[in-house]
Amino acid sequence: MAGTPTFATPPGFLGITRQDPGAGFCIAGVPLDIGTTNRAGTRDGPAAIRRASRMLVDGVHPQHWTDPRNLDIADIGDFAIALGDIPASLALIEQQAAACAHIISLGGEHLVTLPLLRALARRGGGPVGLLHMDAHVDTWETNFGQSLAHGSVFFHAINEGLVDPKRMIQVGIRSPVDRETWDWTLAQGVTVVTAQEAHEATPAALAARVRGVLGAAPCYLSFDIDALDPAFAPGTGTPEVGGLATWQAQGLLRRLDGLAWAGMDLVEVSPAHDQAEITALAGATMAWEYLALLAKG
Amino acid sequence: MAGTPTFATPPGFLGITRQDPGAGFCIAGVPLDIGTTNRAGTRDGPAAIRRASRMLVDGVHPQHWTDPRNLDIADIGDFAIALGDIPASLALIEQQAAACAHIISLGGEHLVTLPLLRALARRGGGPVGLLHMDAHVDTWETNFGQSLAHGSVFFHAINEGLVDPKRMIQVGIRSPVDRETWDWTLAQGVTVVTAQEAHEATPAALAARVRGVLGAAPCYLSFDIDALDPAFAPGTGTPEVGGLATWQAQGLLRRLDGLAWAGMDLVEVSPAHDQAEITALAGATMAWEYLALLAKG
Amino acid sequence: MAGTPTFATPPGFLGITRQDPGAGFCIAGVPLDIGTTNRAGTRDGPAAIRRASRMLVDGVHPQHWTDPRNLDIADIGDFAIALGDIPASLALIEQQAAACAHIISLGGEHLVTLPLLRALARRGGGPVGLLHMDAHVDTWETNFGQSLAHGSVFFHAINEGLVDPKRMIQVGIRSPVDRETWDWTLAQGVTVVTAQEAHEATPAALAARVRGVLGAAPCYLSFDIDALDPAFAPGTGTPEVGGLATWQAQGLLRRLDGLAWAGMDLVEVSPAHDQAEITALAGATMAWEYLALLAKG
Amino acid sequence: MAGTPTFATPPGFLGITRQDPGAGFCIAGVPLDIGTTNRAGTRDGPAAIRRASRMLVDGVHPQHWTDPRNLDIADIGDFAIALGDIPASLALIEQQAAACAHIISLGGEHLVTLPLLRALARRGGGPVGLLHMDAHVDTWETNFGQSLAHGSVFFHAINEGLVDPKRMIQVGIRSPVDRETWDWTLAQGVTVVTAQEAHEATPAALAARVRGVLGAAPCYLSFDIDALDPAFAPGTGTPEVGGLATWQAQGLLRRLDGLAWAGMDLVEVSPAHDQAEITALAGATMAWEYLALLAKG
Amino acid sequence: MAGTPTFATPPGFLGITRQDPGAGFCIAGVPLDIGTTNRAGTRDGPAAIRRASRMLVDGVHPQHWTDPRNLDIADIGDFAIALGDIPASLALIEQQAAACAHIISLGGEHLVTLPLLRALARRGGGPVGLLHMDAHVDTWETNFGQSLAHGSVFFHAINEGLVDPKRMIQVGIRSPVDRETWDWTLAQGVTVVTAQEAHEATPAALAARVRGVLGAAPCYLSFDIDALDPAFAPGTGTPEVGGLATWQAQGLLRRLDGLAWAGMDLVEVSPAHDQAEITALAGATMAWEYLALLAKG
Amino acid sequence: MAGTPTFATPPGFLGITRQDPGAGFCIAGVPLDIGTTNRAGTRDGPAAIRRASRMLVDGVHPQHWTDPRNLDIADIGDFAIALGDIPASLALIEQQAAACAHIISLGGEHLVTLPLLRALARRGGGPVGLLHMDAHVDTWETNFGQSLAHGSVFFHAINEGLVDPKRMIQVGIRSPVDRETWDWTLAQGVTVVTAQEAHEATPAALAARVRGVLGAAPCYLSFDIDALDPAFAPGTGTPEVGGLATWQAQGLLRRLDGLAWAGMDLVEVSPAHDQAEITALAGATMAWEYLALLAKG
Repeated sequence: MAGTPTFATPPGFLGITRQDPGAGFCIAGVPLDIGTTNRAGTRDGPAAIRRASRMLVDGVHPQHWTDPRNLDIADIGDFAIALGDIPASLALIEQQAAACAHIISLGGEHLVTLPLLRALARRGGGPVGLLHMDAHVDTWETNFGQSLAHGSVFFHAINEGLVDPKRMIQVGIRSPVDRETWDWTLAQGVTVVTAQEAHEATPAALAARVRGVLGAAPCYLSFDIDALDPAFAPGTGTPEVGGLATWQAQGLLRRLDGLAWAGMDLVEVSPAHDQAEITALAGATMAWEYLALLAKG
Repeated sequence: MAGTPTFATPPGFLGITRQDPGAGFCIAGVPLDIGTTNRAGTRDGPAAIRRASRMLVDGVHPQHWTDPRNLDIADIGDFAIALGDIPASLALIEQQAAACAHIISLGGEHLVTLPLLRALARRGGGPVGLLHMDAHVDTWETNFGQSLAHGSVFFHAINEGLVDPKRMIQVGIRSPVDRETWDWTLAQGVTVVTAQEAHEATPAALAARVRGVLGAAPCYLSFDIDALDPAFAPGTGTPEVGGLATWQAQGLLRRLDGLAWAGMDLVEVSPAHDQAEITALAGATMAWEYLALLAKG
Repeated sequence: MAGTPTFATPPGFLGITRQDPGAGFCIAGVPLDIGTTNRAGTRDGPAAIRRASRMLVDGVHPQHWTDPRNLDIADIGDFAIALGDIPASLALIEQQAAACAHIISLGGEHLVTLPLLRALARRGGGPVGLLHMDAHVDTWETNFGQSLAHGSVFFHAINEGLVDPKRMIQVGIRSPVDRETWDWTLAQGVTVVTAQEAHEATPAALAARVRGVLGAAPCYLSFDIDALDPAFAPGTGTPEVGGLATWQAQGLLRRLDGLAWAGMDLVEVSPAHDQAEITALAGATMAWEYLALLAKG
Repeated sequence: MAGTPTFATPPGFLGITRQDPGAGFCIAGVPLDIGTTNRAGTRDGPAAIRRASRMLVDGVHPQHWTDPRNLDIADIGDFAIALGDIPASLALIEQQAAACAHIISLGGEHLVTLPLLRALARRGGGPVGLLHMDAHVDTWETNFGQSLAHGSVFFHAINEGLVDPKRMIQVGIRSPVDRETWDWTLAQGVTVVTAQEAHEATPAALAARVRGVLGAAPCYLSFDIDALDPAFAPGTGTPEVGGLATWQAQGLLRRLDGLAWAGMDLVEVSPAHDQAEITALAGATMAWEYLALLAKG
Repeated sequence: MAGTPTFATPPGFLGITRQDPGAGFCIAGVPLDIGTTNRAGTRDGPAAIRRASRMLVDGVHPQHWTDPRNLDIADIGDFAIALGDIPASLALIEQQAAACAHIISLGGEHLVTLPLLRALARRGGGPVGLLHMDAHVDTWETNFGQSLAHGSVFFHAINEGLVDPKRMIQVGIRSPVDRETWDWTLAQGVTVVTAQEAHEATPAALAARVRGVLGAAPCYLSFDIDALDPAFAPGTGTPEVGGLATWQAQGLLRRLDGLAWAGMDLVEVSPAHDQAEITALAGATMAWEYLALLAKG
Repeated sequence: MAGTPTFATPPGFLGITRQDPGAGFCIAGVPLDIGTTNRAGTRDGPAAIRRASRMLVDGVHPQHWTDPRNLDIADIGDFAIALGDIPASLALIEQQAAACAHIISLGGEHLVTLPLLRALARRGGGPVGLLHMDAHVDTWETNFGQSLAHGSVFFHAINEGLVDPKRMIQVGIRSPVDRETWDWTLAQGVTVVTAQEAHEATPAALAARVRGVLGAAPCYLSFDIDALDPAFAPGTGTPEVGGLATWQAQGLLRRLDGLAWAGMDLVEVSPAHDQAEITALAGATMAWEYLALLAKG
């Protein structure tokens, strides 16, 4: 802990001060939340996650011994969205994301993953593999009649060929779900690891399973904070009990180095429902774990 | 306090159990909140206001000696809306509202007033007078580019001829505002009473001014909970300090009997930001004051 | 602010360390709360009020220039009660209170005033005058069928001759109430000052009215924290909007020196619904104001 | 997620709208809380649990593939109780419960289990087996002198022959306890699984042990939310650290299908101490898990 | 409300992006809080106030019709301090402040005013007049033995000749205080307006009194957020009930244009004790009111 | 649960009423918190921990069958400190601690361990073994330039020979850390068990490892509440996700009987960030576990 304190790191994530989108890695907030089906409020997620990240700047990662701040990295601020308009917001997000080489985005609701993957596909080529941490499969065809909402993000991503469902694995799943949605998901080739299964496995075993599904081709991490139990992440909109502990998620992520990571999002942090910043800190930490993997190379 | 307690009144507002829209007065929740410009969460307002209204059933109104529950009244539940879709939601709200003779709606954000006034106009005829309790003028032409959002509700209502601006009075106004919006509002003939002016007047003087503006023709009460100071109503999305105390709002409303009231809305209660239900109770109480006026006749 | 800090005054109210009931003035907690009709939790009131009173020990009273700690005063701890048994608890409270010359009690719910007044009558003689600060008249004959509960305390106190209703004045009244209870109260001779009336009067005018009712004979202060508005006292079980500000209550109490005060209770502080101790501090301050009056003599 | 959203399921548990007690399964709230020994407030539990249950209606159970809403089931509202009077409340609860074939009750404090078991015995016959999830043995002879309170419920249930202690198993036990109460419990034949033992076993092993104790005869589930750790259930009155995670409780319950379940209660949820509804959601989920078992048959 | 929303203004106060100390007016955070005598936590004040200021950027000031963002103004971030070391921190603050022409500082505890006034004196010349909004006189000689702490700031400022006590006025005073400190303050020539006096005056009368004391020479505004009542500002360390409403403080400040303002501080906002950002917003608003005065010229 | 309830145990820890420092074991609060690097507020820890300990007096320890209250034990209150002055506070703490035979202290920040160990060394002789539960190694040479702060406590303790690093073991370590500090710690001979390692071991295995390091010579327990995960202990200043569950910490401590325990501290409980007292209760419980070990002998 060097330097003189101000109790205020610079306002970028991890105190990062570079702000141009030409960096190799770009942090971006995406404050869209109007496709949320239960409690609202994830528009305030990016600010809370950045603020909570001040806990993560006292040194380097204690297992990888890397420092995300040494990456070619910028925090480019929050993406502009269209107030109250989902289609226009998705277009705006995709357009802004397309300017970045590798995005680590801070949500916002889970629907933001769709334009991020679209931008990635536009830049990159074929569909990506996906590690999807979540309590929900998010492959509903609609959400109470709305096709573009946070429970349908991977229905679209798969149908649009953005994600290769054979290389997609979901970890932490436990919400009620209709049988048609469940069966459709499996029929696409998606691997589903329920929360109960995750609890009865070690992080090492989970990591092996994830590595087996993702393979060596480009892959993406979509981390919905509600993959964690509400005890660890109360500040979210659609909590489901029975979820993962933060140590389990960390134990899994730390074993996923060396993969062809192409992007990440951390979504569904809702500060109005948080307590003492613990959810925002959990979100910041998961993004920091991802960055530490990248820094390890 | 008669009967046997259950610590749970029936779930309708004030414990009202009648549910059919054929009643003379209909309570309706309107959980739309996606046109909100700052903190989200008013979709949970109707449930919180109904729950808080259990404090108001221990007797009759202590000044008017009337009981809203004796009106020809139903709580018809919450209106269906279209998830994540403002125009479709407005159409749905208008359609559902059109089935009711006289609506007391519980928001939701302020934009819901627009389809409620449209339905009222469709049922009723000419434009109504308006008592608008608020911290904001809500006559912006757009909200960050969005024409249909909670800061523009009365821009549209005036332009559509739903409200007669000569018979429209705003009380509690105090937010920052651009000069063009302010001047446009005054140019329409709207009477604006700032919060500072309201604090330096008595409720009786305010009531006299309101009666003078509203006149004897049909009129409507639109009560944004942020007319109250954040001390009295922390649970809202766009708080502004310097607002009214609840006793002032009650002192004003209680002096407005005998007018041609045609409907009311109570909007912008956001329970995730509330403390000990005080905002929800303030909202419930303002609706109860309105109903007590109606019961007085 | 002398001495060495510990950030912890001794645990007695105002840091008072004397604990024997032989003192001229006795602070006593009364953690009964099972006769509460809405939100529970005032059993934790005494501990919270004592803790909050640490803010009041940095000097003497800034208007009377007296220090309650210089009185012949003890904090005798909390009275024993009978878990889950109202009649047995009332008997216990009365018995313990009878050992004290002059009690300042910290509730607990309002029902505790009944055994305190019974003990006072037993020690003292005739009925006392009463200043009753409250949102509720508390003269219901029953509370949902329960005769001994917090809404009936003064029905019993008047009927038992513990209070002289001609010398009883209620300030802050504003809850819904049935007409029979209201009329009965007035018929006994009780003076009722509604919250709306109190807001439109100055503290000096209120004080004059109170002094006129109480006269020179022995009198008692029963302060229900819900006399204050929920903005100033969210931590209570039966909040009603439109209540007093703390400065108004202080402005009234400070003008009531020289009366024949015989006891006081501060009731209905419910810490689980409080925010940042503001309700507990309001309660502690009102008891401190009373003690400062006594110290002034 | 079908239909049009209102962000408000109907107010019954899981949105169930049937309300008559003639249903095969009846949800009932029991808002008694005056026999609580520490923090009060479980009277508000039923309303909070019902509200939180809106998270559980997006599909069917993801392991049993059953939907509790397809049972012959009603939510009959909250039972009437006698304010401030334990014996009268117990009589009322027993009387109301006796009208139902199979009750799933939402507390309220743990004492409510006693009249529920009395009603069950009256309807049914011999004593039942019991799965008792709790941090406390609840077999104290008295609670600070009070025989009828939440720490004595199973002292009475065993002594009255309502429960067969040889077929009774307690899971999650960890509070301080006097040796006499502990020894008495074991001497009756009760099986006690401490929280430390539960943490070191798998849910499957726990389930096997529970099935061994309960056998094939009629049995009952009494789930005190404080069986869970305060991290997972802060909203309760007598928290004890070191408790179960929600996933462990779910892992156990899901393996208990095919038993002769005769009733369930979920008790001790205290909303005033909750954060972001996580305790209420945990309670709702445990009741949903029980119903999903019943639906599986 | 123009432009495209991001729900995130730039992180500077009022979204100000200029950061160099060469601006005519400099916003600076001062996160010192170790001289606090009761609840800690004002080190987090600057970040919370900046975040809350996003509510103040939707337009211009609705009475002065000025926009603080049009001033020659920068937000230069937070001053460095010396962790756990009061004298070293004061030296650092003074040194950093000396580089600025006119500082508007966001605390932090009230002690930070001392080095700010020292820097001002060093730059400017003679002692300044002072408008001191506070619940406490802050002229104690020591705080529990500590000479440099938040209750002694003006004891030092007067003794060091930084403030002219004849041109110093305190508004909102109400805490307990020892008589020696009170008498010393008056003996210096300081004008004290208690909270009770302020409540019984109009803002216009208060403003006239303040203008009379300050005169035309250079003056400074030191605004301790606890001048406001805890209902309006719960998030502070040494709350005292009976304080000002936000509208009163605004009504006073708005009438103080045209004075020779030389600097301002807004101190004692403690976010951990805040609710829904209302204290942070009150603090941000008072700074915005000051800036709007400056912009009016 | 015997006796008559008051809902208020005496204010000492576990209701202990003896207060003289001549007892064999002394509970002492140490409200120092000015060397904290992130969120402030542990000065309020001792009061909150004592209050929360009321949950631990309903019986004896359910595994050791011992009762800490039967020890030769006193709660001597809070140590005096020097406001805003770290060196003077350390001297005061050391001096007061030196009067006690065996201290169990309640913090306060982690720096308080330094003067406690100094006092212990002064009384006792050679360096002690140390079980250090924490998220942080706390062996930084400085904290943002401050040598005496909570991240440097064991840098000093080792350098001063107060602790034998060969007999020192840290459990729960997981924060970011610079490589130099990490390497220095290991080079001294300290055993570090990361949180990830702790999660993958059983409490029995951890206990064996701890016993191996501590040996039979005098040893000390320093328990920083942030060893626990923020889900279990949100109320602390420097939370790090991925930490221990309370059951794990209890499972470890319960297996450490028979060692030569010479003192304990429980530090870093910050009540302003707590929820429903769960952190304070976790802290109280860990101290109670330690005392129960001592009582077992």
